[in-house]
Amino acid sequence: MIYDLIIIGAGPAGLTAGIYAARSGLKTAIVSKDIGGTANSILLLENWPGFEGPGAELMKKFYGQLKKYNIDFVIDEVNNINKKDNFIVKTKKQELQSKTLILTTGTERKTLNIPGEEKLIGKGVSYCVTCDAFFFKGKTVGVVGGSDCAATSALALSNLAKKVYVIYRGKKLRCEDVNSKRLEEKKSVEIIYNALPIKILGKEKVESLKIKEKNKEKEIQLDGLFIEIGSTPLKEFIKNLKIKLDSEGYIKVDENMKTSIKGLFAAGDVTSYKLKQVVVASAQGAIAAKSVQDFLRG
Amino acid sequence: MIYDLIIIGAGPAGLTAGIYAARSGLKTAIVSKDIGGTANSILLLENWPGFEGPGAELMKKFYGQLKKYNIDFVIDEVNNINKKDNFIVKTKKQELQSKTLILTTGTERKTLNIPGEEKLIGKGVSYCVTCDAFFFKGKTVGVVGGSDCAATSALALSNLAKKVYVIYRGKKLRCEDVNSKRLEEKKSVEIIYNALPIKILGKEKVESLKIKEKNKEKEIQLDGLFIEIGSTPLKEFIKNLKIKLDSEGYIKVDENMKTSIKGLFAAGDVTSYKLKQVVVASAQGAIAAKSVQDFLRG
Repeated sequence: MIYDLIIIGAGPAGLTAGIYAARSGLKTAIVSKDIGGTANSILLLENWPGFEGPGAELMKKFYGQLKKYNIDFVIDEVNNINKKDNFIVKTKKQELQSKTLILTTGTERKTLNIPGEEKLIGKGVSYCVTCDAFFFKGKTVGVVGGSDCAATSALALSNLAKKVYVIYRGKKLRCEDVNSKRLEEKKSVEIIYNALPIKILGKEKVESLKIKEKNKEKEIQLDGLFIEIGSTPLKEFIKNLKIKLDSEGYIKVDENMKTSIKGLFAAGDVTSYKLKQVVVASAQGAIAAKSVQDFLRG
Repeated sequence: MIYDLIIIGAGPAGLTAGIYAARSGLKTAIVSKDIGGTANSILLLENWPGFEGPGAELMKKFYGQLKKYNIDFVIDEVNNINKKDNFIVKTKKQELQSKTLILTTGTERKTLNIPGEEKLIGKGVSYCVTCDAFFFKGKTVGVVGGSDCAATSALALSNLAKKVYVIYRGKKLRCEDVNSKRLEEKKSVEIIYNALPIKILGKEKVESLKIKEKNKEKEIQLDGLFIEIGSTPLKEFIKNLKIKLDSEGYIKVDENMKTSIKGLFAAGDVTSYKLKQVVVASAQGAIAAKSVQDFLRG
């Protein structure tokens, strides 16, 4: 069987593309290793209009809505994609064919790449506040980063932990003002600006973090360290396609979510569009599905 | 007082722009004659991810979320806008000043412009199924149009009315396939293709519609007629600004929702972007608010 459309990824962009594709009668499959993508790790989503709560809860709503339609879900990892007459998507377990593709594979978290980091993952070092915050109830933690994701993570932690350090390399957090104000008002939060983490110390578990603050070395006693320094686009399995990327590796798209390859569209955080937000990714998914319809109509 | 931002219009685009602007600390006002805009007239919204229900209900959720922030609501009609150093927005009751503007004024419904139409408005002729469907319980109605809006209106009416005629000038409805199939399956729905309405007849109230079907005149007995033939952008009060429009009168924007005028942004159905959907309008609102922040930062 040849699908009209395979959507790769099932975050906000992929699930919205699915709703639009299924409603327009396209024979569609969604291939993804999970449902929800990185939106699942948003502790408290406040700027998706009409909903406030954990990202994972919103993703369940998206999925519940999509399941009502005739669409195939393939929960599997993609190994590679080739294009002949159609697109051939090889997953671990099977091979699928489709006339068109929408890539909504999102991003992968960046690491600090400092001594102690890899060794202490799961022993105090974490990249997911949603998953691990509760382990640090009444303890002292650090959050590395200055983005909205870092700020909301630090705010969430401040409700549980005794003390939260925010360690940021810049001299002003780059998150929304509402969040930086909230952080400044929290007595249990201390923001350390102009600071670079250089080593995570601890034998069995995280004990402290060595930082360079304005060229002076300093050690902070910690029980846990959350690393929230952004992400890079996931693209390993699309290498064969030789799709046009921007300088940071994000997929170049036009206003209709077309990529440089005929029949191939992209939406969400994996694209070069700068504002990475759930509502933007969803709209891009809707637009991509509409573009697929136009493409198939000829 | 000079605002950082005035948003004109309070539909999906305006309310989402408000959420993003308020969260980023901009001193913001929303000026609109109502809350929700034309989204209020969507009977059943099924392609806003994470929510299914009346558009008016979703708009209440947007509004409820926005009200938590520090933002001024001015429920008033805009008479005109001028630009000097700042933008000067004159409403019926007051004059407001702002460094930037986001226009999210949406669209206005088109009329058929045929004899009997104007005379029988409110006497069987309607442009709003949400408002008036219930009056036609057990009766015979017509819907003019072939768009998604026309199709969902006809579907909604078919649950109440005894008989629903869909009158469309084309030979195939241009709505989503899922909706045209649903219409075809409904026994109480009859679709008349290649048909032009030419006259609405009735003394005190609508009695029949005269149409031209493949060059033959025909009269259909009706109790009510819903006209769902699309919209035109609202722009009367922005004439002074000499903003660049497309050939149909929609405001030209770039990918960051910038218009041809410095400090002036637009989002939602009023823009030239073709896919008019609630989720697209919302994303454009978020993007416009982000662009305002970047603009004010210099």
